[in-house]
Amino acid sequence: MFKRHLFRRAAILGTGLIGGSVALALKSRGLVERIVGTSRQESSLKAAMDRKVIDEAYTDVNRAIQGADLVILASPVKVIVENIKDISKHLRRGCIVTDVGSTKASIVDAAQKHFPPHVLFVGSHPLAGSEKSGVLFANADLFKGTTCIMTPTEKTNKLAKEKVKHLWTCMGADVKFMPPVEHDEVLAYVSHLPHLVAYSLMHAIPDNFLVHASTGLKDTTRIAGSSAKMWGDISLANYRNVLKAIDDNVKALSEIRKAIVDRDEEALAKFLNQARAKRESLEKKI
Amino acid sequence: MFKRHLFRRAAILGTGLIGGSVALALKSRGLVERIVGTSRQESSLKAAMDRKVIDEAYTDVNRAIQGADLVILASPVKVIVENIKDISKHLRRGCIVTDVGSTKASIVDAAQKHFPPHVLFVGSHPLAGSEKSGVLFANADLFKGTTCIMTPTEKTNKLAKEKVKHLWTCMGADVKFMPPVEHDEVLAYVSHLPHLVAYSLMHAIPDNFLVHASTGLKDTTRIAGSSAKMWGDISLANYRNVLKAIDDNVKALSEIRKAIVDRDEEALAKFLNQARAKRESLEKKI
Repeated sequence: MFKRHLFRRAAILGTGLIGGSVALALKSRGLVERIVGTSRQESSLKAAMDRKVIDEAYTDVNRAIQGADLVILASPVKVIVENIKDISKHLRRGCIVTDVGSTKASIVDAAQKHFPPHVLFVGSHPLAGSEKSGVLFANADLFKGTTCIMTPTEKTNKLAKEKVKHLWTCMGADVKFMPPVEHDEVLAYVSHLPHLVAYSLMHAIPDNFLVHASTGLKDTTRIAGSSAKMWGDISLANYRNVLKAIDDNVKALSEIRKAIVDRDEEALAKFLNQARAKRESLEKKI
Repeated sequence: MFKRHLFRRAAILGTGLIGGSVALALKSRGLVERIVGTSRQESSLKAAMDRKVIDEAYTDVNRAIQGADLVILASPVKVIVENIKDISKHLRRGCIVTDVGSTKASIVDAAQKHFPPHVLFVGSHPLAGSEKSGVLFANADLFKGTTCIMTPTEKTNKLAKEKVKHLWTCMGADVKFMPPVEHDEVLAYVSHLPHLVAYSLMHAIPDNFLVHASTGLKDTTRIAGSSAKMWGDISLANYRNVLKAIDDNVKALSEIRKAIVDRDEEALAKFLNQARAKRESLEKKI
C-alpha cells in the first residue's frame, strides 16, 4: 500500500517508554529512514542515544522538527499541548503529526486550534505501557498485540489518517477509531479510574500492615507503581470524566457498605455476583 | 520432631479449593494416614473422591469426625462457625481442630465457647488461594512459599499449636502468630478491602466500555473473579473492620477528588507519589 520507507525523517518529542518504543518499532520495521528525538531531561536523551533508540538528539523541539515529515508527540499530556503551540509555526508543509497521549479531547482541540491547514494532525492513543517508565524499558514490540485508539474528526486529512493507521498496524497494534470526547469518557473508566483506585487503595492501608499482604493486593495495586506525575497530569487533563468515574466508584463502594451495615446477605451476594460476572466477561473480551 | 504419620485420621469439613489442597498436601507429605472429607455439595464430594483427594466421603459432618484425631474446618466462615457448634459434642478426646477461615475472631470465639476442654483448637488462616474455587483446582503445593497466620490465644493448648504449626510448615507455608482480633484488622485492609475494591471497580464501569480495557484493569480486578458468596460471607463476619477499611479507602479517593477539583497539581502529585512509594515498598516486603 505504501512504499517501504513511509517517512524520511521522524521527530519524536519525548523519548520515554512510549516515545522510545515507537522509535525502536518504526526503525525495526523500516518505516522511517531517520529518527530524531527530544527530551527535557538530558539523561533520558543521552540514554536514548546510547541505546541507539534515536539517531539525533535535541533539547530544542523546534530544532528537532526541522525537515521532519512525521512528528510524534510523546510527552505527558500537558507537555503535548504546550508542544503543539510551540511547534505550530515551524512545521514543514504536509508534515504529518500524531501523538500518544492518554487523553485526547484537549490535545485534539489544541491541534485543531493551533496547527495551520498544511499540517496534518490525527490523534492516537496506544493502549500499551507498563508501570515502568523511561527509555531503558523501551522495546520495539511494545505495541504488538495491543490496541491503538485513533481519534480522527471530520477535519482530519484522510491520507494522514491512513498513513498513521498504517504505522500503528505495522508496529503490531490493532487500530480502532473513536471520537476524542468518547475516548476520554471510556478511558476515564477503563484506565484512569483503575489507576486512581490502585493509588487510593495503597494510601488507605496502614504501613505496618503491608508485610502481611499477599498476591491479591499485589495484583490489585500493580499499576500504583506507575508514574505519579503522568497520572496526575492525565487526571487533570480529563478531570470531568475522571471525577464522574470516581463518584460512580464511590457509589458502588457505598452500595457494598450499605449491604454490610444492613447485614443484607442477599443484596451483598447479588452485587458481588454481578461484578464477578462482569469480570468474567472481561476475560473473554480482551 | 514428630513421627512420620503425625495423625491417623483427618476429617476435612469442606472439600473446596483450600480443603482439597490441604488434603492433597497432607497426604503427599505422609502427615496423615487416612483422610475423610465432607461437603454440602454432592458434586464436590464426588469430584474429591474421583480425584483421590480424600479416602472417604460423607455428607454428615458428625459421621465424618468419628475417630478423627485431626479435624480441619475448611468451609466458608459462616459454615465453620455452624460446624463448630454441630460437632462440639462428638469430637474424640484429644482431637486437634484447626480451620482455614479468612476471618478469625468469630471462629476462635465460637471454638472457645463451644468446644469442651478435651478438644484442642487453634485457628489458622493460610494466605493462599486464587480467584478459582472448587476441588478441581486443588493442588498439593498450594501452600508452598505462602504465609499461614495462626491465631493461638492464652487458652490454646501448646502441643496443638506446635503440631498444627508443624503441619503448615511441612505443607510449605511460613507460619506467623497473631492474636485473632489483630488478624481481622490487618486482613480487612490487606485482603478484604482489595477484594471489595476490585468488585466495586468492575461494578462502576459501564458494560459497553469493557471492550476497550487493557491489562491495567485486568490486573486490578483479577480478584473480582473470586467467589461472591465467600467474600460476602467474609465481609459480614469481619464487618466492623471491613467498614472502617472501606471508609478509609473512600477518604483516600476523596483526597484525590479534592486535588483534581482544586486543580492542585502539587497536592495530587504528592498523594500519588506517596502511594507509589508504598507500592514500591510492598514489592520488597512480600
